[in-house]
Amino acid sequence: MFTTKRVPFTILFPFTWRAVLLFLSYSFLICFLYDEMDWKFLAIPFVPVATIGTAVAFYVGFKNNSSYDRLWEARRIWGSITNASRSWAIMVLDYISTQHSAHTLTDSELQQIRKDLIYRHLAYITALRVQLRQKPVWELHHNPAHEVVERIEAFRQCSLDKELSRFLPLNEIESLIRHPNPATFLMRQQSAQLRDLRENGLLSDFHHVDLERMLVEFYNQQGACERIKSFPFPRQYAFFSYVFTWLFIFVLPYGLLTEMAKVGNWHVWLTVPFFTIIAWIFNTMEIVGDTSENPFENSINDVPMTAICRNIEIDLRDMLAETDLPKRVQAINNILM
Amino acid sequence: MFTTKRVPFTILFPFTWRAVLLFLSYSFLICFLYDEMDWKFLAIPFVPVATIGTAVAFYVGFKNNSSYDRLWEARRIWGSITNASRSWAIMVLDYISTQHSAHTLTDSELQQIRKDLIYRHLAYITALRVQLRQKPVWELHHNPAHEVVERIEAFRQCSLDKELSRFLPLNEIESLIRHPNPATFLMRQQSAQLRDLRENGLLSDFHHVDLERMLVEFYNQQGACERIKSFPFPRQYAFFSYVFTWLFIFVLPYGLLTEMAKVGNWHVWLTVPFFTIIAWIFNTMEIVGDTSENPFENSINDVPMTAICRNIEIDLRDMLAETDLPKRVQAINNILM
Amino acid sequence: MFTTKRVPFTILFPFTWRAVLLFLSYSFLICFLYDEMDWKFLAIPFVPVATIGTAVAFYVGFKNNSSYDRLWEARRIWGSITNASRSWAIMVLDYISTQHSAHTLTDSELQQIRKDLIYRHLAYITALRVQLRQKPVWELHHNPAHEVVERIEAFRQCSLDKELSRFLPLNEIESLIRHPNPATFLMRQQSAQLRDLRENGLLSDFHHVDLERMLVEFYNQQGACERIKSFPFPRQYAFFSYVFTWLFIFVLPYGLLTEMAKVGNWHVWLTVPFFTIIAWIFNTMEIVGDTSENPFENSINDVPMTAICRNIEIDLRDMLAETDLPKRVQAINNILM
Amino acid sequence: MFTTKRVPFTILFPFTWRAVLLFLSYSFLICFLYDEMDWKFLAIPFVPVATIGTAVAFYVGFKNNSSYDRLWEARRIWGSITNASRSWAIMVLDYISTQHSAHTLTDSELQQIRKDLIYRHLAYITALRVQLRQKPVWELHHNPAHEVVERIEAFRQCSLDKELSRFLPLNEIESLIRHPNPATFLMRQQSAQLRDLRENGLLSDFHHVDLERMLVEFYNQQGACERIKSFPFPRQYAFFSYVFTWLFIFVLPYGLLTEMAKVGNWHVWLTVPFFTIIAWIFNTMEIVGDTSENPFENSINDVPMTAICRNIEIDLRDMLAETDLPKRVQAINNILM
Amino acid sequence: MFTTKRVPFTILFPFTWRAVLLFLSYSFLICFLYDEMDWKFLAIPFVPVATIGTAVAFYVGFKNNSSYDRLWEARRIWGSITNASRSWAIMVLDYISTQHSAHTLTDSELQQIRKDLIYRHLAYITALRVQLRQKPVWELHHNPAHEVVERIEAFRQCSLDKELSRFLPLNEIESLIRHPNPATFLMRQQSAQLRDLRENGLLSDFHHVDLERMLVEFYNQQGACERIKSFPFPRQYAFFSYVFTWLFIFVLPYGLLTEMAKVGNWHVWLTVPFFTIIAWIFNTMEIVGDTSENPFENSINDVPMTAICRNIEIDLRDMLAETDLPKRVQAINNILM
Repeated sequence: MFTTKRVPFTILFPFTWRAVLLFLSYSFLICFLYDEMDWKFLAIPFVPVATIGTAVAFYVGFKNNSSYDRLWEARRIWGSITNASRSWAIMVLDYISTQHSAHTLTDSELQQIRKDLIYRHLAYITALRVQLRQKPVWELHHNPAHEVVERIEAFRQCSLDKELSRFLPLNEIESLIRHPNPATFLMRQQSAQLRDLRENGLLSDFHHVDLERMLVEFYNQQGACERIKSFPFPRQYAFFSYVFTWLFIFVLPYGLLTEMAKVGNWHVWLTVPFFTIIAWIFNTMEIVGDTSENPFENSINDVPMTAICRNIEIDLRDMLAETDLPKRVQAINNILM
Repeated sequence: MFTTKRVPFTILFPFTWRAVLLFLSYSFLICFLYDEMDWKFLAIPFVPVATIGTAVAFYVGFKNNSSYDRLWEARRIWGSITNASRSWAIMVLDYISTQHSAHTLTDSELQQIRKDLIYRHLAYITALRVQLRQKPVWELHHNPAHEVVERIEAFRQCSLDKELSRFLPLNEIESLIRHPNPATFLMRQQSAQLRDLRENGLLSDFHHVDLERMLVEFYNQQGACERIKSFPFPRQYAFFSYVFTWLFIFVLPYGLLTEMAKVGNWHVWLTVPFFTIIAWIFNTMEIVGDTSENPFENSINDVPMTAICRNIEIDLRDMLAETDLPKRVQAINNILM
Repeated sequence: MFTTKRVPFTILFPFTWRAVLLFLSYSFLICFLYDEMDWKFLAIPFVPVATIGTAVAFYVGFKNNSSYDRLWEARRIWGSITNASRSWAIMVLDYISTQHSAHTLTDSELQQIRKDLIYRHLAYITALRVQLRQKPVWELHHNPAHEVVERIEAFRQCSLDKELSRFLPLNEIESLIRHPNPATFLMRQQSAQLRDLRENGLLSDFHHVDLERMLVEFYNQQGACERIKSFPFPRQYAFFSYVFTWLFIFVLPYGLLTEMAKVGNWHVWLTVPFFTIIAWIFNTMEIVGDTSENPFENSINDVPMTAICRNIEIDLRDMLAETDLPKRVQAINNILM
Repeated sequence: MFTTKRVPFTILFPFTWRAVLLFLSYSFLICFLYDEMDWKFLAIPFVPVATIGTAVAFYVGFKNNSSYDRLWEARRIWGSITNASRSWAIMVLDYISTQHSAHTLTDSELQQIRKDLIYRHLAYITALRVQLRQKPVWELHHNPAHEVVERIEAFRQCSLDKELSRFLPLNEIESLIRHPNPATFLMRQQSAQLRDLRENGLLSDFHHVDLERMLVEFYNQQGACERIKSFPFPRQYAFFSYVFTWLFIFVLPYGLLTEMAKVGNWHVWLTVPFFTIIAWIFNTMEIVGDTSENPFENSINDVPMTAICRNIEIDLRDMLAETDLPKRVQAINNILM
Repeated sequence: MFTTKRVPFTILFPFTWRAVLLFLSYSFLICFLYDEMDWKFLAIPFVPVATIGTAVAFYVGFKNNSSYDRLWEARRIWGSITNASRSWAIMVLDYISTQHSAHTLTDSELQQIRKDLIYRHLAYITALRVQLRQKPVWELHHNPAHEVVERIEAFRQCSLDKELSRFLPLNEIESLIRHPNPATFLMRQQSAQLRDLRENGLLSDFHHVDLERMLVEFYNQQGACERIKSFPFPRQYAFFSYVFTWLFIFVLPYGLLTEMAKVGNWHVWLTVPFFTIIAWIFNTMEIVGDTSENPFENSINDVPMTAICRNIEIDLRDMLAETDLPKRVQAINNILM
């Protein structure tokens, strides 16, 4: 996530320089052919070009809208994970009780059980985050939105086992990462521990089901993330938005020529800056949507999952009355991951 | 689902070659009549044509939007089925308990009960998938979106009984497929087994109702799929989008003639490429919406149900501690089903 | 619901012939006055007319969008009724149990109770369907969307008591139809029977509340239908969409005259076909929205409630292990009701 | 709510006569200055005016969309109140039972308890309705949408105590209306009675919580109404829609002059009818949104709360087996309140 | 929140005077160069400029829509907090009971417990409000939407501890504000007190879980506020809306020159007022969206959280039968905070 109100030129530059150079050369070439080589036939009327422009603006607008919805839904899901994590913590802390239990447990034994459930939860959100960012959606595709992030050392993805070592003992991690979906399996383990607690009388049937319902909630949010990750914006829509935009940019200068030539002779050269401005606007619209559609890609427009996970960790460990809380994650070069 | 960022020409070609050929011939004919036969009366002003263009772009945009919503909702439903399946599994594994039961069951007997409930669930999602893809919405309608898929051997639909044989004994399958809606009946059987478990004291009333609520959730998701399948995008909206687009394409070249003739004499022939580009854009917009509206059709834009079902199978069998897990489904020719 | 991909001319004709005739005569008259009577003052510039056109296209687009949302919501509600009906059936079949009851009931007595609850439910959805279709929203309004349906004998609405006789004894029906809202009262009776079952120990408190929650769900869906029925698309929006469209159609030919006259003398007569095409597109857009806004009107764009009710009946009676199941409802003249 | 398909002229007139008169005079004045005073400089090109027109149409469209959403949400809330009221009634009738109670109550005592809970609920929806309509959102603002309603005697708002006297004893009303929010307090009283019933063993814990959940639902719906009432469509959006529309109307005739003058000399006078039509369409669009944004204002576009409350009363008293049911509320002058 | 129907000039002025001055000078300069310096080459055709205008209007419209959605969602969340607070109050008042308790508590002891839970809740919503308004989203960014509010003494933000002192004892506040998120911790304390009540038999398991569910609801709403606060409208979308608007404004006067020059010589000076009107409309559209996107910023478009908190306080203390209720918050200079 980019965090300042204005996007500085240094961020903009890698996204646009290639296209701008292309627009300048393309329109320069056409003006040269028209004016110097006297290829007057290059000029075509502007009105049909404007018709394409309107249709393309519609279509790109639709794509932008949908990309934004995907991004916003992704952020909403991680908001829900935050809420549910806090709820999980107060439930774990206040539902487990020796009231109806035949066993007698010391306070520190009880506290250890609670800590286990909460730390395994922190491991869960960590695993989910790493899994989501690990595999790119498009294997061979690479763009400036990724490069900007990859250039920053601190954003290098750690391996899952290293990230988990803060919350789980090593032997558990080793068996865990052999499962096809570690995050899913961590929830499975939470459920197994809840069953134990119930069988030992530390949870009433009623409280047991209520806690299990929280696991269902986590599965729902996890599944929602995986759905966004594994079902990119449908290609039939996204690809043609790209094609239409470039078709429009391709025919645009011929239309501009005519209009500019109407005003005066050397005015045709104004086609160059004007074409570049219009083409840049349409191309930028396209790119804005394109780089926002996948919010879990280790790219500049990612949902800041690392920061969210840290905030959850701070809140939950504060509830456990721990005092050596970690610091909040800060933006680096105005990028928060 | 198409899985690469760019749609290659080999996929595009079957969708567009007929239309492009038509556009070329139609505009060529008109130019010929105008320029060679001197039928100057063919030229009409472009402005009213542009008015139609704007209205049509609106209307097609609305159709595309709605088709996308249908597709996205379909994917969301299958995401929910994934989530609920995982939840079903942890509940089945951890709710059924001999704690309050008069009966004594061995661990392996208990495990068998759990496996029954989970395997019947895998049979359920398989049955749902096959049912959704079996019957086409439009009996006599056939388009390239289907042909592309049908050409690939691996995507041939198996019969329901063959698909189910991996999860259910043969005799059960035989009686099952005689019911009007096998998927619905499988849930009915789950419910019956839950009742047995409750009556034998293996489920408390409270856990019983909570598991039954999961069956309600599956009925909700199944019904949502069937609703999308049996209620296509309303014809009054979809059909006129098609009619308006072609009316616009029909009148477009006459308007272009006038504009092109303004620039110079032989420029009228530029009507051919220009008309083809504009017509192709509008026609493609129409087709994109049209091929996306039905997401359970065994066509290229299908929700990848086969892959999703396999992922659920892997997750659930992993939870059952099975180790010979099947592989994930891979895309063939960049198509994931 | 219309069920084929293409709308045939026989369906289109009653909707459009009057308007097309009007468009032809109106534009013919204007051309005649301009060209033969030499009323040259009739020609006005096209550009302001195009401005109206854009604004109207926006407004009509908004109306179409909203009408579609109403239709889709209506279909979604009936989808939910289907899902809830199936859930109701498995709950009725598996919740009612003699486990905790002092009474001893034979299996067939139990089965009769279950059948009562399920058959009364089938009566409920039938009553809801008939109630929704009985009274038109606009008393004196009549359009081709209704005529097309009314011409087909099989779509004639039966009286409520006749329809209910398949599911309820006659004496119950008689007292039922005296209530102000029979469907609401049927749910009231379901609730009363559930209380009896609870008081006789055939339902635990917990299962009782869960079943009652299903009745709440049915009231929610019923209320949603009644809301759509009794609150048509607000007149302030719908009516002006109609007025603006016709104002646009009214001024359109004068603007076209000017444009056509620019090209050549007798070209003004091209105003007739061109005006007719543009006017037809705008008028058709308006009509599409207008005929779709009320989905429970016994008209061609109705949600196919009869078919949905039949499907529910088949599923539920199959669950009761009945074997003489009725057939699915088929479309007649491509219309499914 | 206006209830006929076509809005008659008598309703339209008060909304539009002032504006139409203004449009006519304004454009007449401009034409007079241009044609008679020869102020030719008044004519400016139309194209930039059209650009404003498109932008304004977008903006007004957005406002209309949002206003409609507010209106539709308001109607949806009152639909939910209807549904929840019916559910409240069947729960009150069938949950309260002497089964587990030490007390013995006669049937008529039980019935009185049920009647109390249902009549207090009818008082609640009445109080909510009156509260919503009592205070206008804009103290000093008054428009035809209100005048049309205020002219009709039957729509005069009664005071809250008079309306409540049909459902509550006088002494209760007196203490009730002293509270800051009577509707909120009525729910408080329902909750207190539920506690009494539970403490007297007439409600199991489980049924108690389920009934209390219905009170939560009513608070949710009430709060949703109050939110719409107290948070009008944000001024920054609504006000500029009004300003932009009138700016467009202000500059429009100068642009039309040029276009009309192109055709012929006296054609400039056609500016008057044309300007009036375009200005009327844009102004009407603006007004349609503006009069629909507040659905609880005692104005012509109100959600028909009086009719809905009456329908709930009929349904609930029918469930209580009462026979002297009131009549449904009828529209007066095609307005249903 | 601004509270009158029309926005007065005094509010508008600080937002627009700089831009209007800039527009006037810029266009004056261009006209001067064209007309006096005879730089005729400055005039370029208007049509391509109009194409940019349409695309920009689309894009800004999208931004406005999204900003409005954020604002409306924020208001909706605080509506839900109101509803849930009322529900919390009736539950606290009527769920806690000595019915099943071994302890005997006097009525005033019980009442004190209830008051504690309700006052701590009032502290919670206060803490949430102060936290949301404390830290700005953009550290160094400042605009008139904030200045208008900051000029009013009564809107100065108090420190959290001072605000909380009305509801909590001082020692509790001191320990509270040391936690990383005081609002989150207050809910933690509510949960701990609920556990105590359950362990002392003052809450049945069932009522305990139901009250805990309300805490989950509060965490959900709190998290939703924090999500809107910490995830501003994505920069890639918002920033380019700003850039495109100003690019359009930048090229607009050159296009207007040509059109105005067509009409007559000195008409070029009409570029100044016309340009200013069009530029002002587009710029205002942009600003409206920009100042509405962050609804918790202590700015003029804030959700009126102070007023909502006060209303909740009045309702809840009225339910506690307190009589010295505070007054509702009034708007100052038509601004309600």
